[in-house]
Parts: sequence; C-alpha cells; structure tokens
Amino acid sequence: MKSYCETGPHSARVAKAIEKEIFSGTFPPDSPLPSTRALAGRFGVSQRVVLSALDLLEKKDVLVRQERKRVYVKARSVVDGAKEILFFAFGDEIGLHSIYQAVNEMILNTGDLRRYDFFSRIVSSSGPFTSNRLDRELARLDNLGFIDCALFYCFMDEASMRKCMNLPYPVIFLGEVPDSGKLPSGARMISPDSTGLLLTAAKYAVEKQYKEMALAYWEEPATHRYEKKALRAMEDFLKSHSLPLRKIPIPGADLRETRKNFNSMAPSLAASLAPGTLLTAQNIHSQEFDSRTLLPRKKYPGIDLLTLTLPESSCRIKSVFRDYADFQRTVVEFIENARNPSEKYRHVTINYHYKIVEESE
Amino acid sequence: MKSYCETGPHSARVAKAIEKEIFSGTFPPDSPLPSTRALAGRFGVSQRVVLSALDLLEKKDVLVRQERKRVYVKARSVVDGAKEILFFAFGDEIGLHSIYQAVNEMILNTGDLRRYDFFSRIVSSSGPFTSNRLDRELARLDNLGFIDCALFYCFMDEASMRKCMNLPYPVIFLGEVPDSGKLPSGARMISPDSTGLLLTAAKYAVEKQYKEMALAYWEEPATHRYEKKALRAMEDFLKSHSLPLRKIPIPGADLRETRKNFNSMAPSLAASLAPGTLLTAQNIHSQEFDSRTLLPRKKYPGIDLLTLTLPESSCRIKSVFRDYADFQRTVVEFIENARNPSEKYRHVTINYHYKIVEESE
Repeated sequence: MKSYCETGPHSARVAKAIEKEIFSGTFPPDSPLPSTRALAGRFGVSQRVVLSALDLLEKKDVLVRQERKRVYVKARSVVDGAKEILFFAFGDEIGLHSIYQAVNEMILNTGDLRRYDFFSRIVSSSGPFTSNRLDRELARLDNLGFIDCALFYCFMDEASMRKCMNLPYPVIFLGEVPDSGKLPSGARMISPDSTGLLLTAAKYAVEKQYKEMALAYWEEPATHRYEKKALRAMEDFLKSHSLPLRKIPIPGADLRETRKNFNSMAPSLAASLAPGTLLTAQNIHSQEFDSRTLLPRKKYPGIDLLTLTLPESSCRIKSVFRDYADFQRTVVEFIENARNPSEKYRHVTINYHYKIVEESE
Repeated sequence: MKSYCETGPHSARVAKAIEKEIFSGTFPPDSPLPSTRALAGRFGVSQRVVLSALDLLEKKDVLVRQERKRVYVKARSVVDGAKEILFFAFGDEIGLHSIYQAVNEMILNTGDLRRYDFFSRIVSSSGPFTSNRLDRELARLDNLGFIDCALFYCFMDEASMRKCMNLPYPVIFLGEVPDSGKLPSGARMISPDSTGLLLTAAKYAVEKQYKEMALAYWEEPATHRYEKKALRAMEDFLKSHSLPLRKIPIPGADLRETRKNFNSMAPSLAASLAPGTLLTAQNIHSQEFDSRTLLPRKKYPGIDLLTLTLPESSCRIKSVFRDYADFQRTVVEFIENARNPSEKYRHVTINYHYKIVEESE
C-alpha cells in the first residue's frame, strides 16, 4: 500500500489497521475505541502515531470524535440514521441492464427501503473494462469512508472479484459468475437466472403455435458461459416441442456497432422470414423496434417481434415485462446479512418474473 | 483545514495548493507539472515535501505518474474517456422530486450524454438536513478525487451554498434560490420555474370550466419564498378568471406524517367539495391516489382529481406529465461551461413543459 504521506507511513499503516478492526467488528460501531495508550501498545507505535492515525480516520469519516470523551467509533447508520450502500455499476448503456434497473428502483423506493442512503458510481460511458481501470476505480472507492456494504455490478473474472473483496467493507456481487464457473472463496453473489428470459420467449412461441422461432443476438456476450447456458436451455426446450430455431448472431465490437449492423441487416433478415415466425432479439436494444419500421405488418404478414431487452416504455408489438421484486428482496436480505458467515448468504440465483405484454399495432 | 496526518502538514497544504492550481486551470490537464524543484521553490518547501504532496494527489487520483516522465496532470476525461459528474441529492422521497428524476434520466441516457460518468450521493433516508450533516457530507465529497463538475440538489441557505462552493471543483446548484432571494456571489444555479405547475393546473381548471378549484398542499414547504410565489401566481390567475380557489394546507413534520394526515382528512375533505370542483394536490404524494379510493366517481360525482406530484406510472384520474428536456439541455450546457465566467452561465430559470394526461376511470 502507498503511504498517505511520506513522513507518516506509520500512522497511515495504523489507520488502515484500526479501520480493518472497525469494519471487521473487533471495534464495534457506537462504542469507545481502546485508549490511545492501549492502541499504541497493540500496534507497537508511539501515542503520537496513534493520534495521527485517528486524525486520518476522522478525516475519512470513519470515526466521530466527541469532546472530552473516548467515544470514537460510530457507524454512519448511528450518526445519520441510515445504512450506507455503495453501488458500483460499469456497463455499456447501463440504464438498459436489468440489474441496474432493479437497484435503481431500490434507490428510488419510498417505502421500506428508506433505511438506506446510497453512493453510486455509475460508469456508463463507452470503453472496455480493463484491469487498470478497475484499479483506478477501487482506489477511489477505498477513499469513500464509512460504507456499510457495497453492491458491485460488472462482469468480472475471479482475479478482479478478489481485488474488489479487498475493499474495507463487505461486497455483494450482482450478476453472473465468471466464465471459469467458480467464485473466489468467500465471495457473495446474487445472480439472475440467465435462462429465464429466453425460456419465457420459447414457451410463448410454443404456446402461441408459431411455426418457427428466430433469435437475433449480439455475438460477443454470447461467448460467455451464462449466455451459452441460456441458449442451450432454449434450444432444448424448443427441440422437445419440435419448434425450429433459427439463430442469427449479430457481430459488433460494442453495442453501438452491433445495433448499426443489426439495423442494416434488418430488411434482408425480415424478408427471409417465413409467415408464422416469432422473431426475438436479445442484447441489441435496437431503436428500430421503437419506430415500428423493422417489421411493418402489412409488408411482413404473420411475422411477430418479441423484444426481450428494451425498457417497457419504448417497447412495441410484444415485449417482456420484468418483475424485480424477488431480486430486490434478496439484495436487502444479503445487505442485512453482509457479515453473516452462513452459506445461505453466499450465492443464490434468482429468477425474475417475466410477463409477455402484447400491444396492438 | 485539518492535516492529512500529524507529521506532514506541509505536504497536505502543498497538495491542496497544487490541486487548486490544477482545478483552476493553472496546471492544465494532460500536461506536465512543473518540476519538483520548481514546485518546491514556488511553495517555499523542500523537494521531499513536494514529493509527499504528489503522493497524496496520486492517491486521490488527481495525478497520473508515468515512469521516467514528468507528466503528472491528467484529467479523468483524458484517462477514461468521459467527464466525471458528481450528483449530490438530499431529500425526502427523493425519487418523486422532479429534479432528481431529470438528472437520473441523464444518468440513464443512452445517447448523447454517454460522455459522462457519475458519482451519485443520494441521501433519501429521513432526517433533517442540518449544518453538521452537510459538513460530514462535504468532507467525504472532498475526498472523491477528480470530479469535473458537481450538481447539487438540496434546498440550502446562502451560508450552506457557500460551503459547497469550497469544494475543489465547480458546483452547479439545481433548485430554488435561498429564501433570502439572494445567491452567493459567483454561484451557478439552474432553477425550475416554480410557478409553472400550479399555473398549468389553474389554466386547465379555467379551460375545462370547473366551478371551483381546491388545492391541498403540504404546509411546511409552502413557507418558502418560491412556493409562496407559485401560490400567488395561481391565485392571481384564478382571480382574473373569477374562479374561486380553496386552499387546504396539510400539516406534518415530514412527508410521511403529512401523507398520513392527508389520508385521514381525505374523506371529510372530499365530502365537503361541491360538484364541479377540481381538486389538486401538491407536495403530498399520497398513495391513496393510487388506489382510486380517495374520490370514487360514484360517491363524489362531478369532482375530479388532478395529481401534480406523482410519478406518471402511479397516476390516476388526471395527472401532469413533465418534460425535462429543456432542463436537461441546460444542465449539459452549464456543465460544459462550468468554468466560463460569462453571466450566461450564472442563474437561469427553466420551465418544464407540462401536459395534462386524462385517464378514464
């Protein structure tokens, strides 16, 4: 670790150590710290160094100093009446991600959830999520002071997850397990069931007796383990109901490019579909859906479009409504048990509830 | 200012000074800092102290050190491809505030605005906004590192605004001018036109030839200057059209209590209204509106309800749709000109565009 300043590496080290003891529960919130003398003995430094460390921690808002009292440790929830939740989200077009939407609803919640205050770090500009970028983000999040619990939404590998777990507060990952299929030891994660969405579409196609199903999807994320699993579940279901599936991967380095490619492919794609086809699209978010120009009923009779990943307000024709309530309840349960060692609060998979909404043209 | 650590007050002071020069543009982004020796001379300290200060600033993510080069200053927008915007919002039931909604839409925006990344500090738990609380919040925001511009949404007096303006990055206030009617010198602010909403309701009542208008409003915010101004504008307009206005102030220490009071008053209030009355409610957000139980048409014929402050999705009967586009455009313009001394980027008042949405029962 880099020192806070050149001439005070001891106090920075001691500050970090005290902070760890606070966050790990050794020095519990709303209770006096051991005396300066006791702390000096414990860490093998002078009382001056301990006082500097306490200065640092006060600056970081981890401690509250009260005049003429020895009370130092205060949880923010005690100081300000609410637990502090950090929400970190990194993603392209973040507002369209279901997990972002679910947590954003929690932030806006006017009911039971008003016991939380939020620090949100929302990186929605384009650009890849690199190891350097993660390091820079973590360095800043480390400075945030008294966070009770962090929610991390960002697709990461095991090594990156481990880096996040070094933050001085508990981290709950939201999203998919790494492509290795393994979670780092001790990691906590809430995953949406990746198969639910495509299976909902497939069941709808079977129920409504379509003759064929066509799935347009962004090629890149489809290489991930969880997307493959979802596609396989859809294929198996359709096969068992003898409904053919036509897979249409759309190439693109990022969403913008993929959408552009999809839009230019759309006319010839639409022309190639037979009547009785249900066309679905995942991970593309094409604005074309909005304009109803992609599949005008007059020009392409018998072809319906089911949009899987568009926000409700911009959906046309048929769309999927997601209910995040179970997911949100689980997030709250994990937050409230962020230090509970029980296996129950390690990794769970939650199915959103989907509902197909039909709109007349 | 408190020192970062006891033994390094000089380096903390120098770090702060260098930071100021960076944010003020003296040491521009993406360019080398003066040499350690030059900086030592400039601030009258040893090169050791300067090196410590640079350590601090690197830790704060204000500088990027490159091996064997003297390039130190980097704007985050240069490093990561997007400007960093801090959004601070403090309010009861924050998700229902129009300004929160307008900025939140910006955060979610998938189009032109993806050139911004956001740090959001959302305090939506209950509890009053005190001077102590502001100090604690500002101490943490001061630690956030390279922020290009901050948006502050919170009703404040002049002294509090001045405190916020001490942050090491430009601050744009969103909301209403203090009750004193004055902005601190140099403050930048974008205000929504507080008269627009009530005038829209009044014009609707005149146009639809209601015989009376009833306005239920939360008493507490109505003591503020901008609310008084809005009420006066409404009164004047209705008077000039000879439409009587019945004012129904609802008491309550906070929104929760006010809503409770309103709900218990609602039946007798509704019973006291004559047919041909348009009842409007502001700053109450009663969930009762949602259940359509407040004014069932069968029981209270000829009385309509116009809800002014509910989000669109939970509105019933008649509601107002707000269009934030002009406001958002102005926010972007202010962000892009956050260091432009022109009067044009000081204080503007923006009218949302309102549209009355009628729903059949």
